[in-house]
Amino acid sequence: MASTPISVVVPKQHRSRVTRERLLRAAIQCLAELGWAGTTMGIIADRAGVSRGASQHHFHTRDELVTAAIEYGTRARLEEIRREASIGAIPRRSRSEAVLDLLVRSSENSLFMAALQLWVAGASDERLRAQLIPLESRVGREVHRLTAELLGVDENQPGVHESIEATLDLVRGLMLANLLRPHPMRSQRVLRQWALMLDAAVAPNARVSMRRTPKKAKTHVRNQGT
Amino acid sequence: MASTPISVVVPKQHRSRVTRERLLRAAIQCLAELGWAGTTMGIIADRAGVSRGASQHHFHTRDELVTAAIEYGTRARLEEIRREASIGAIPRRSRSEAVLDLLVRSSENSLFMAALQLWVAGASDERLRAQLIPLESRVGREVHRLTAELLGVDENQPGVHESIEATLDLVRGLMLANLLRPHPMRSQRVLRQWALMLDAAVAPNARVSMRRTPKKAKTHVRNQGT
Repeated sequence: MASTPISVVVPKQHRSRVTRERLLRAAIQCLAELGWAGTTMGIIADRAGVSRGASQHHFHTRDELVTAAIEYGTRARLEEIRREASIGAIPRRSRSEAVLDLLVRSSENSLFMAALQLWVAGASDERLRAQLIPLESRVGREVHRLTAELLGVDENQPGVHESIEATLDLVRGLMLANLLRPHPMRSQRVLRQWALMLDAAVAPNARVSMRRTPKKAKTHVRNQGT
Repeated sequence: MASTPISVVVPKQHRSRVTRERLLRAAIQCLAELGWAGTTMGIIADRAGVSRGASQHHFHTRDELVTAAIEYGTRARLEEIRREASIGAIPRRSRSEAVLDLLVRSSENSLFMAALQLWVAGASDERLRAQLIPLESRVGREVHRLTAELLGVDENQPGVHESIEATLDLVRGLMLANLLRPHPMRSQRVLRQWALMLDAAVAPNARVSMRRTPKKAKTHVRNQGT
């Protein structure tokens, strides 16, 4: 038994999971580097070091594989954020800044690029879009929930839910602004200012919240609209 | 003379400008619909109803044409915003909300999609990226300047410059969130909340500004970083 290769004694179920994860990680890399057009089942299988037959066993279509890859990548990213947060990366003071920093740092890998490639392709590919829309909702809800949890805010407070959604839009927009070349100083300054604005908005008894827009004023603005 | 076709009496210089603008508009449409890979000089010329020879006379390479197209499209967009703002779309009350609304509405056309396609392609195409980086700076400065002007804010005040940059990131991120399908209610709520946060940050004597982060606190956060 001593000379038996390790792979032989690995249970079948575990090997299957390892193969699946290899395919998912390879799909993210391919999308990020080659775009949607360049990402074929064959190329993903080659990168993963998995036979085409085995890859077909796990995922029937490319749409299925890439959708699963983004979901897998996002979950891994959320776990990473959670782990970092648990080891004390979030001080009580300037909590928002630390959370924003975590969100941005964890996006600075091929996952953002892979998702971007996929979303851009999905905008003009009806079938792919139909796969991505439910994925977007699921992933969006999970990212939102974790962000709220890390910020330690009360979502029942007016404006808090929207402030978190705005935060997630801001992070995405910041990643776009850094797509061609990183602007670390700009990013840092924008995030620091955003953290201050967020702190003011989500604090208990926040002065900056949607409660402060009376309905009457809204109508007034609309009427003056054009 | 009465029967002379109008095109014959149009000055040559004017015709040349019209041809150029047709090519620029066609390039935006092609990029938005076909992506970077599908956008060739031939297809753009066909869409513009311009001969290949004439298109070559205006733009030597595809890189040159698409870069000029994004710049042209952005200028047209900024002019449109300026025009709308001048006819009273910006009430004094809730000015931020009106400005945000203008920025988002004016982005809801093929220009954002065209730029996104180009930026994504540029991320993995060295030559294209080299063209896009200076374009990004120029366009970014112009959009920033107009936004500051419409908001009527004082950029010398701490945090104001960063608040505007954050606003532009937010708008980009919001457009990304609406890429696969529009979320008009979500967008409206996010923008309304953001307007309140922005108002609080850019108001004269704002309570939410970077001045409020003493250096000591920053160091404190960093030390607790991990």
